[in-house]
Amino acid sequence: MSFDLVVKGGTCVTASEMFEADIGIKDGRIAALGEGLNGEDVIDARGNLVMPGGIEAHAHIAQNSATGGMTADDYTSGSISAAYGGNTCIIPFAAQHRGMGVTETLDLYDSRAQGASVLDYSYHLIVSDPTEKVLTQELPAAFKRGITSFKLFMTYDKMLVNDAQFLDVLSVAKEHGALTMVHAENAGMIKWMTDRLLARGLTAPKYHALSHPALAEEEAIHRAICMAKLVDAPLLIVHVSTPEGAALVQNARDAGAKIYGETCPQYLFLTHEDMDKPGMDGAAFMCSPPLRDKATQDVLWQHIQAGTFDVVSSDHSPYRMDETGKLANGPDAPFTVIANGMPGIGARLPLLFSEGVGKGRLTMPDFVALSSTNAARLYGLLPQKGTLAIGADADIAIWDPAAKGVISTNNQHDNAGYSPFEGWKVTGLPITTLSRGTRVVDRGQLYAKAGHGQFLPRAKFDATG
Amino acid sequence: MSFDLVVKGGTCVTASEMFEADIGIKDGRIAALGEGLNGEDVIDARGNLVMPGGIEAHAHIAQNSATGGMTADDYTSGSISAAYGGNTCIIPFAAQHRGMGVTETLDLYDSRAQGASVLDYSYHLIVSDPTEKVLTQELPAAFKRGITSFKLFMTYDKMLVNDAQFLDVLSVAKEHGALTMVHAENAGMIKWMTDRLLARGLTAPKYHALSHPALAEEEAIHRAICMAKLVDAPLLIVHVSTPEGAALVQNARDAGAKIYGETCPQYLFLTHEDMDKPGMDGAAFMCSPPLRDKATQDVLWQHIQAGTFDVVSSDHSPYRMDETGKLANGPDAPFTVIANGMPGIGARLPLLFSEGVGKGRLTMPDFVALSSTNAARLYGLLPQKGTLAIGADADIAIWDPAAKGVISTNNQHDNAGYSPFEGWKVTGLPITTLSRGTRVVDRGQLYAKAGHGQFLPRAKFDATG
Amino acid sequence: MSFDLVVKGGTCVTASEMFEADIGIKDGRIAALGEGLNGEDVIDARGNLVMPGGIEAHAHIAQNSATGGMTADDYTSGSISAAYGGNTCIIPFAAQHRGMGVTETLDLYDSRAQGASVLDYSYHLIVSDPTEKVLTQELPAAFKRGITSFKLFMTYDKMLVNDAQFLDVLSVAKEHGALTMVHAENAGMIKWMTDRLLARGLTAPKYHALSHPALAEEEAIHRAICMAKLVDAPLLIVHVSTPEGAALVQNARDAGAKIYGETCPQYLFLTHEDMDKPGMDGAAFMCSPPLRDKATQDVLWQHIQAGTFDVVSSDHSPYRMDETGKLANGPDAPFTVIANGMPGIGARLPLLFSEGVGKGRLTMPDFVALSSTNAARLYGLLPQKGTLAIGADADIAIWDPAAKGVISTNNQHDNAGYSPFEGWKVTGLPITTLSRGTRVVDRGQLYAKAGHGQFLPRAKFDATG
Amino acid sequence: MSFDLVVKGGTCVTASEMFEADIGIKDGRIAALGEGLNGEDVIDARGNLVMPGGIEAHAHIAQNSATGGMTADDYTSGSISAAYGGNTCIIPFAAQHRGMGVTETLDLYDSRAQGASVLDYSYHLIVSDPTEKVLTQELPAAFKRGITSFKLFMTYDKMLVNDAQFLDVLSVAKEHGALTMVHAENAGMIKWMTDRLLARGLTAPKYHALSHPALAEEEAIHRAICMAKLVDAPLLIVHVSTPEGAALVQNARDAGAKIYGETCPQYLFLTHEDMDKPGMDGAAFMCSPPLRDKATQDVLWQHIQAGTFDVVSSDHSPYRMDETGKLANGPDAPFTVIANGMPGIGARLPLLFSEGVGKGRLTMPDFVALSSTNAARLYGLLPQKGTLAIGADADIAIWDPAAKGVISTNNQHDNAGYSPFEGWKVTGLPITTLSRGTRVVDRGQLYAKAGHGQFLPRAKFDATG
Ligand SMILES: [Zn+2]
Ligand SMILES: [Zn+2]
Ligand SMILES: [Zn+2]
Ligand SMILES: [Zn+2]
Ligand SMILES: [Zn+2]
Ligand SMILES: [Zn+2]
Ligand SMILES: [Zn+2]
Ligand SMILES: [Zn+2]
Repeated sequence: MSFDLVVKGGTCVTASEMFEADIGIKDGRIAALGEGLNGEDVIDARGNLVMPGGIEAHAHIAQNSATGGMTADDYTSGSISAAYGGNTCIIPFAAQHRGMGVTETLDLYDSRAQGASVLDYSYHLIVSDPTEKVLTQELPAAFKRGITSFKLFMTYDKMLVNDAQFLDVLSVAKEHGALTMVHAENAGMIKWMTDRLLARGLTAPKYHALSHPALAEEEAIHRAICMAKLVDAPLLIVHVSTPEGAALVQNARDAGAKIYGETCPQYLFLTHEDMDKPGMDGAAFMCSPPLRDKATQDVLWQHIQAGTFDVVSSDHSPYRMDETGKLANGPDAPFTVIANGMPGIGARLPLLFSEGVGKGRLTMPDFVALSSTNAARLYGLLPQKGTLAIGADADIAIWDPAAKGVISTNNQHDNAGYSPFEGWKVTGLPITTLSRGTRVVDRGQLYAKAGHGQFLPRAKFDATG
Repeated sequence: MSFDLVVKGGTCVTASEMFEADIGIKDGRIAALGEGLNGEDVIDARGNLVMPGGIEAHAHIAQNSATGGMTADDYTSGSISAAYGGNTCIIPFAAQHRGMGVTETLDLYDSRAQGASVLDYSYHLIVSDPTEKVLTQELPAAFKRGITSFKLFMTYDKMLVNDAQFLDVLSVAKEHGALTMVHAENAGMIKWMTDRLLARGLTAPKYHALSHPALAEEEAIHRAICMAKLVDAPLLIVHVSTPEGAALVQNARDAGAKIYGETCPQYLFLTHEDMDKPGMDGAAFMCSPPLRDKATQDVLWQHIQAGTFDVVSSDHSPYRMDETGKLANGPDAPFTVIANGMPGIGARLPLLFSEGVGKGRLTMPDFVALSSTNAARLYGLLPQKGTLAIGADADIAIWDPAAKGVISTNNQHDNAGYSPFEGWKVTGLPITTLSRGTRVVDRGQLYAKAGHGQFLPRAKFDATG
Repeated sequence: MSFDLVVKGGTCVTASEMFEADIGIKDGRIAALGEGLNGEDVIDARGNLVMPGGIEAHAHIAQNSATGGMTADDYTSGSISAAYGGNTCIIPFAAQHRGMGVTETLDLYDSRAQGASVLDYSYHLIVSDPTEKVLTQELPAAFKRGITSFKLFMTYDKMLVNDAQFLDVLSVAKEHGALTMVHAENAGMIKWMTDRLLARGLTAPKYHALSHPALAEEEAIHRAICMAKLVDAPLLIVHVSTPEGAALVQNARDAGAKIYGETCPQYLFLTHEDMDKPGMDGAAFMCSPPLRDKATQDVLWQHIQAGTFDVVSSDHSPYRMDETGKLANGPDAPFTVIANGMPGIGARLPLLFSEGVGKGRLTMPDFVALSSTNAARLYGLLPQKGTLAIGADADIAIWDPAAKGVISTNNQHDNAGYSPFEGWKVTGLPITTLSRGTRVVDRGQLYAKAGHGQFLPRAKFDATG
Repeated sequence: MSFDLVVKGGTCVTASEMFEADIGIKDGRIAALGEGLNGEDVIDARGNLVMPGGIEAHAHIAQNSATGGMTADDYTSGSISAAYGGNTCIIPFAAQHRGMGVTETLDLYDSRAQGASVLDYSYHLIVSDPTEKVLTQELPAAFKRGITSFKLFMTYDKMLVNDAQFLDVLSVAKEHGALTMVHAENAGMIKWMTDRLLARGLTAPKYHALSHPALAEEEAIHRAICMAKLVDAPLLIVHVSTPEGAALVQNARDAGAKIYGETCPQYLFLTHEDMDKPGMDGAAFMCSPPLRDKATQDVLWQHIQAGTFDVVSSDHSPYRMDETGKLANGPDAPFTVIANGMPGIGARLPLLFSEGVGKGRLTMPDFVALSSTNAARLYGLLPQKGTLAIGADADIAIWDPAAKGVISTNNQHDNAGYSPFEGWKVTGLPITTLSRGTRVVDRGQLYAKAGHGQFLPRAKFDATG
């Protein structure tokens, strides 16, 4: 058999092992793994790692917030940055705001993504208004459309659902086989802390960290887990940032509950001290949950190693440090009206590889599992995405494990205008990214066009299979 | 490329996913995974599962005990039974008795295995006499020979090591990269309970269970873990049989220690009530640790699902119900002088598949991980064994997931003369077993000859790799 | 010195020990403990136990609910029943309803209690409407008035506070030294379960138990503890009814937080099966949290023994089984509109003594601690109440440890018209109750008059002193 | 009634409360608590605290070790130092060495104590040789003699019992109602660490700490608890020095086991850095378990507050810094042959009061419980000792809570020749100690004579009573 493209001589890495093999690609799919394969086109991968491309499962792209802001990245810039960072698939959010229908929401995001993305994509549906119609008609319709993960917020006045609504959504999700995701922070605690800080005139960006105490995360994660247990539905806690929160996920898992956890590079590499900068500079490091401390980083790494977290995502939330983003409310705005979030879709994998594999914390198969395979499994994409199996989409990232680089906004290819990881040195970088057998990025050059990426209807969540 | 053998059209299952593919085998190795492969010989696997063959990592074969008994199976019958049960590799024990050297021990077991096994094999080295010479010369020599796992006993007067000796062995193992395994039961508790039972004339087989209380296992596992932590060495607890013991393994793992656990089918499927039979009949169900209760089975299953156990092994210890085995000390012997153990090398995988995958407790990739891949990883055989990767030995088991059978000593092909699982109905059975591309068993027929199996030098233990 | 009254020859029991002594009482206070004391009046206590009278710290008396109902007992009948049951002090609730001021509330309850009670009393203030005025003016004023415990609800639409309000009250309580108490059940879970039950027509009393799942208690207790930790304020969880809830209290205590727990006889002696009766009969056993199961009883007892619970209170909530009480909404009312609660102020101590001390679960000092001393310490009454110390009020209960009786509504002296403990046999009964040296009840006869009891201003909560 | 002695006007403190009262003493017993009491002799305690005298339940006095050394204090100096330090009762050890009978041992210690002690005393019996005769005849005989606590060692070659022996002793203790105590450290770990340190020439005193790792304590405590559970016998872990060990005690208690814990001032106030001194100076701080670190101190305090430890004892083990004690094996002796232990019988209570009550960590009743009442309860002395109850021995310590002092060997009145707490400033000091109504020490002056103290037969251990 002759192949359209052969990736030759690389060291293949999957979530379970490493082996030398050529990969034969035909019609965009992996048609063969073997030795001595020939194809019309050949990529010489000798000395390099050949891995399933990363799946970025937590990113805010072309997303408008309830208060009117719009992320700095659209599907083109967002997916390009992802591709440069070794990803071949993205699952941003489609956010229902109150008063909007779910179908309307999905149509809107389809219009934003279609023809724009260079990578295949799906959305998690953010549900902020679970009306009767949403619960009984629109969520089932979304599910049929291949949207099989629903995200809820326990904080943010305009987004949060109350506990009974949370149970309603879990119940519908369970019935259809969708996975519920949750941003877990206690709204009341945040409000109470915020009120007291503002009352004392403590409005600088750094006070954002105090306004979102670790106990607010611990509380909300416990509550969310209790609700998932009541319904016996699976639940994924996004962006876990505290030792206490991680321990709750671990304990629930240990006890047999279908509770999953995600953490993010910012909680592994940055601390709240990064917010303690003059003027508004600290605002670049504002995100929710906020950055914690050094001791927390160590515990989170330990949880990654122990299997508490299935995914490490970027939570890419790009807002520029100007009036279109963080400074929309002026240069003296209190932390309460500064957009939360930071970019990172391009930096996630190089940081995780360099600090994880390079520092001996992770094996290479662990890296593949955390960056790609587990997300594919959780979000209904395996084995189409997330692995190097026969029949899978040829979504492949080729890495030079010895390449050295420095993270900088200049090499991130997004529109945020800054990187919170500016200056971090990394060893190991993606050099080629293939999407369905097509070069998206190769040795620094962008090849794929906006629109190459297609919408991915996803299968239902199936923890046992 | 043309292959020596192609397994066509099956559903391949690895530890991480399932996909349809042909497997092309050349020179005993997997040379290709793909579509439309051709070979001189073809096995039609349509409708069947194609999995890495099982690795039986806990079996007592051709092993003489410290008190003089010999197991009923030698490397020929033991490996044949394993092959019928879907295994392609076995790692029994080479037991050093006090006064024996390690090299002498390994030479002895080489002589017993060579030319006898139908499957590739290695041994775990049982160390009962860690003299200075053993520690400084013979264990390193064994390691160089490819014996990279050492097993210790915390009970049995003639086999046990004391705590300082345990630390000595852990220390040598750590230095070389060997994995230490331990039979963890508290010798003093067992002796104390036994003395009291005998003093009251309670000698029937069923009292064996009382003489090995759950607390004896809990205690010894905790102690073993403390010792592993002191040395910072990896440790695998074999045949965990109690909720308390499993929880200790889980907690240690959760906290980042390199502690691994194994359980066995008998603890999942049988209970101590099976020992409560007239005369010596209960002796067939005597093993150490002893069978526990129904509630324990549920907890052990939960731990399998939660990832506490990396391996489920048979602890195949075949003794016939006659004067060569269980009845060596006569028909009225007290439980203290009856050989411990039960056969199960052939039944392990059908039971695990049927009760695990068939009952919805495990996914198929979970089954592969538990039966093969994890053992290969822990014992230094991955990716040569334990997976379907390019370059791996073509050690493959083809299963008919719908085949129905009944476990019976008649279909186990071992020499034990009975099966503790007699009468268990299973769905899903191995129909073909390939060792390095050669049919060992195919649709009930044995093809490979004694001596086909070769000794496998194993790589060092590497938790991070 | 000559005494007004001497209790002679009894076995005195305090929270820490037992000893033989006469008690000399002068001017209503304990003036001496000694031997051979003489007084104008003498009670022969030989062969009997002389203990600090019980302090009933959780009772609903002369309390109107947010939905308009009134408890069947006023301060006269409630205190008389308490006195017959071995109590010498009661701390019911003064319930602020929304729109009411706190001072107004306390004045109202003063008017209900003054001249009515036969025992000394105080109130816990229920805060349902923590307005700015309440927080900054009225709670401090209540505290000055000697009301040093505030109770909050996390469920019941008309009573509950939200999380930010909870933090506000904790913060004010901490500042002044008041103890916050909480009814901890998750309102959203209860609503969600209730809606689903009603939607299926499941309205009988027994469904009340399903509508208040154990997870709702576990969740709310965890949340409440998190909030107490955020403010670093002490918190008492009332009527803990689940193993999970008790474990949370225990863990928080173990970790050094000032978290306290209370459970009630109904959770120790009854189960939800008591609600499974024809027609409305099950309504007699409706309370919130609801009755659980037998396994729970055992765990709660274990927690009592382990010190998790400082107090065992009755949660006396008397509603008659007629149109004034449970049947106010008719004989076919769904469980959602049936008054919650059951009587028990008179049965608490005989049950606790008989099942606790009599069954070997508690020592006599444990009984005194649980029934009296701990409540006095937590609620700012020690050493005036709750112990047999010089200078303390002569609030004494004399018990015949061998007396046998049967709990029946006929001997409870309350107005509920039924007892959920009807028919329970007990050994050990109070025979004389003294309030400030005055006989309230003696050998079945009531002596004290309504109005003997006085309001007790209480000291601030002081965990370290 | 007129009394022999009245302690007037003090603030009485018991384990449960504080109150103002006079104490009337007659015939050596507390005959009255009251107001306006008169006696032939009067002590003015106005402004002072009147507490049950301390019970020192862990001290090595007139004890010869298995290797031949003798403690620096005999019953005269030891009891005098205790009395100056606010104690009124001591329970040192009577140590059976291998080959000795138990009766012989007790007779020997009787001969050492009789006529020597200024305070009442008993012994815990150290059992190092539990022969059949010891188990069946001598331990029961010791129990009848009023020796109701047996101590075992898990380390020290000449003292330790193996696990089966441990179970034997627990079993006999349970049968009679004795409390077993244990020095819990893993002998094998200590030996292994020691061998490696010596092999590297690391022999200075400070290496003692490394040779007794925290894991050795954690392991042995867990093992001891498992054995106590197997027998269902009560067990007290002496001198707990690690967070892990304390947590095991706490968890066992939480789960309902009768496991008790003790810690000592040295683990609360000193660290292993105190051993890091030139030459042999560090030997003054050598004890087993060894001193740990600052973080451990905080955790141990937290456990004291949480109730994990019932007693805080001195583990007074006086060896002089000369050839009679620490330097018996010369000035260059390796740590392995230096006597373990440090003095502290006189410093225990002032340190605990000043750092506990004075720093807000303990209430005064907590102090009484930890220093006296709990020991009396555990060791069968309540209510004769350990409380201020009618009929109790008038063993009273009067403290000036405002007195300031500095711990120094000069004011300790023992024979150790140094104090590890030299220079510690304390606020709150005992000024008068009464034993059975007789002044032992009063305002710095010693009154009682050697021989005042009498042997105390103790009652059986009774956790529920
Ligand atoms: Zn979020
Ligand atoms: Zn996000
Ligand atoms: Zn074994
Ligand atoms: Zn075995
Ligand atoms: Zn309530
Ligand atoms: Zn209530
Ligand atoms: Zn000791
Ligand atoms: Zn000692």
